[in-house]
Amino acid sequence: MAFAALAALSKGGSLEPFSYEPAPLGPDDVEIDVTHCGLCHSDIHLIDDAWNRAKFPQVPGHEIVGKVAAVGSAITELAIGQRVGVGWQRSACLSCDLCVGGEENLCRKQQATCMGHHGGLADKIRIDGRFTFAIPDEMESAVAAPLLCGGATVYAPLRRFGVTAATSVAVIGIGGLGHMALMMLRAFGCEATAFSTSPNKREEALAMGATDFAASTDPKEIRKHFGRFDLILSTVHAKLDWTTYLQTLRPNGTLCLLGMPPGVIQVPPALLVTGHRSLTGSDIGSRRTIREMLRFAVRHRIAPLLERMPMSEANAALTRLRENQVRYRVVLER
Amino acid sequence: MAFAALAALSKGGSLEPFSYEPAPLGPDDVEIDVTHCGLCHSDIHLIDDAWNRAKFPQVPGHEIVGKVAAVGSAITELAIGQRVGVGWQRSACLSCDLCVGGEENLCRKQQATCMGHHGGLADKIRIDGRFTFAIPDEMESAVAAPLLCGGATVYAPLRRFGVTAATSVAVIGIGGLGHMALMMLRAFGCEATAFSTSPNKREEALAMGATDFAASTDPKEIRKHFGRFDLILSTVHAKLDWTTYLQTLRPNGTLCLLGMPPGVIQVPPALLVTGHRSLTGSDIGSRRTIREMLRFAVRHRIAPLLERMPMSEANAALTRLRENQVRYRVVLER
Repeated sequence: MAFAALAALSKGGSLEPFSYEPAPLGPDDVEIDVTHCGLCHSDIHLIDDAWNRAKFPQVPGHEIVGKVAAVGSAITELAIGQRVGVGWQRSACLSCDLCVGGEENLCRKQQATCMGHHGGLADKIRIDGRFTFAIPDEMESAVAAPLLCGGATVYAPLRRFGVTAATSVAVIGIGGLGHMALMMLRAFGCEATAFSTSPNKREEALAMGATDFAASTDPKEIRKHFGRFDLILSTVHAKLDWTTYLQTLRPNGTLCLLGMPPGVIQVPPALLVTGHRSLTGSDIGSRRTIREMLRFAVRHRIAPLLERMPMSEANAALTRLRENQVRYRVVLER
Repeated sequence: MAFAALAALSKGGSLEPFSYEPAPLGPDDVEIDVTHCGLCHSDIHLIDDAWNRAKFPQVPGHEIVGKVAAVGSAITELAIGQRVGVGWQRSACLSCDLCVGGEENLCRKQQATCMGHHGGLADKIRIDGRFTFAIPDEMESAVAAPLLCGGATVYAPLRRFGVTAATSVAVIGIGGLGHMALMMLRAFGCEATAFSTSPNKREEALAMGATDFAASTDPKEIRKHFGRFDLILSTVHAKLDWTTYLQTLRPNGTLCLLGMPPGVIQVPPALLVTGHRSLTGSDIGSRRTIREMLRFAVRHRIAPLLERMPMSEANAALTRLRENQVRYRVVLER
């Protein structure tokens, strides 16, 4: 029986009804009746083929929550009707050193939920059940959806870099990812500085958990924070003044890219050598990290700020996302 | 009584006899009768004013070993006649967070032994006794000299990044620093790959401790090592193909700059994000690290390969250093 999806039929196209025959349900697979799907800038990148890797028709959507409708013969931990979620990653080899070490998000053979496969803007999806996540009973499905990708992406580096209540962290970009970062940093008890190009986000950022706000349109405002941060999370896909931001790090501090800026990053080596500053990046989260993050979000009542729209209005939602109007994450509901 | 030194009187000049009146011996100072002084590429940078920070006359030399000739009133741990050494750093504030935390090598007020002060190419030097190091009895003075700066510089990141016998490390540049790195990596039991532009260094590099050697003049030779290293130490001051070297890192690996390449470093962000690779730098070593390194060198019989020349032939030694002829470190003796 065909699945009813929404797809971009060609590069940059709007979403159109599209039906496809799913692959047979393998022993490790589950079929999910999709109830919620978040939208993320990566979906726009896929639709626009910004990474030159999209295949059309392209069904986007990789922040999926729904109910288990069918399970493969090897699946023992999931029950029909159970609420589960799916994030960016749909599978990995599960046999390389990284996979067996619990870093399957770095596996060379990893596959993305909606790259080369059809994603979550559909009535159903079939996917490797080992890459689904039980949604805690206390968590609403719409809240879970953006946590599964965006939430995992900001949570993983907080754990990797040992963030605690003694850490001073900056978040560049207060959008879908950044606003969840602020909420998590508040839960960790951090000093959290929000850098945003939208000065009108100040009050909201402070309400989310920022202890300080800086308008990043003005280099002078950035310079006021020289030597302050142990960790900077850059959540934006834009070219920034890396030299200035690196100087806002304390000695031994780290600037971690979550967003992928275009082109190359230029770094003066003296800023790395003299203060032992580091530049690195982080890519989604491992399954273990995502499970932990979901429990963390329940315990600390972290709920992304959402715009809820019916899946039938997916094109309108994409337009709001493209025009940077979403506050702060949009979730489509069926 | 004036000190008899060798100084570059102007930018790029050869070393000429130069005498100067030392500052009064402060309570924390010691006066050292210099017996040995290593030469390092940083001395050439100072003479050539490559960093636009030199003051002429410039007495270079910051790998100093000698005997304590006089001590200030507050010095209790050093005795007249004792063998001591001095490295790159001559002082720090000793009161900032970094200093009280044992990272005085990152102190903003740190002063270098021979920048704005007269260095070790002299019969005597006066310096903060708290930045001198007792030379272990088992260690020859000529051996100690290059360890105090170059040795500390390569040892510090091995400790910072937790190098053990399970670690795969690459060293770019098999010169003064790089050859000491290989010896230390052998002591740690590492897999150690030497990258050198001089294919004729292969046999020596393998004898020093390299487990593998690659001619870095050929990008193909570098590419053979894709995905291999946990840590890369770049000891050279040259512009390298950072994109290719970053790809020789394993996921979670770190490229650490010890040398300062000219201009800016260009990094494709995807290499940082997708494999959690890091780019950072390291600057000399803390006093605690240097003390540990001296004990480590004794215990593991690490002795840099030296050319010994009389201090009166300092200009000839500098010429050999400039022409990349030194194998692998030159020490001037009085």
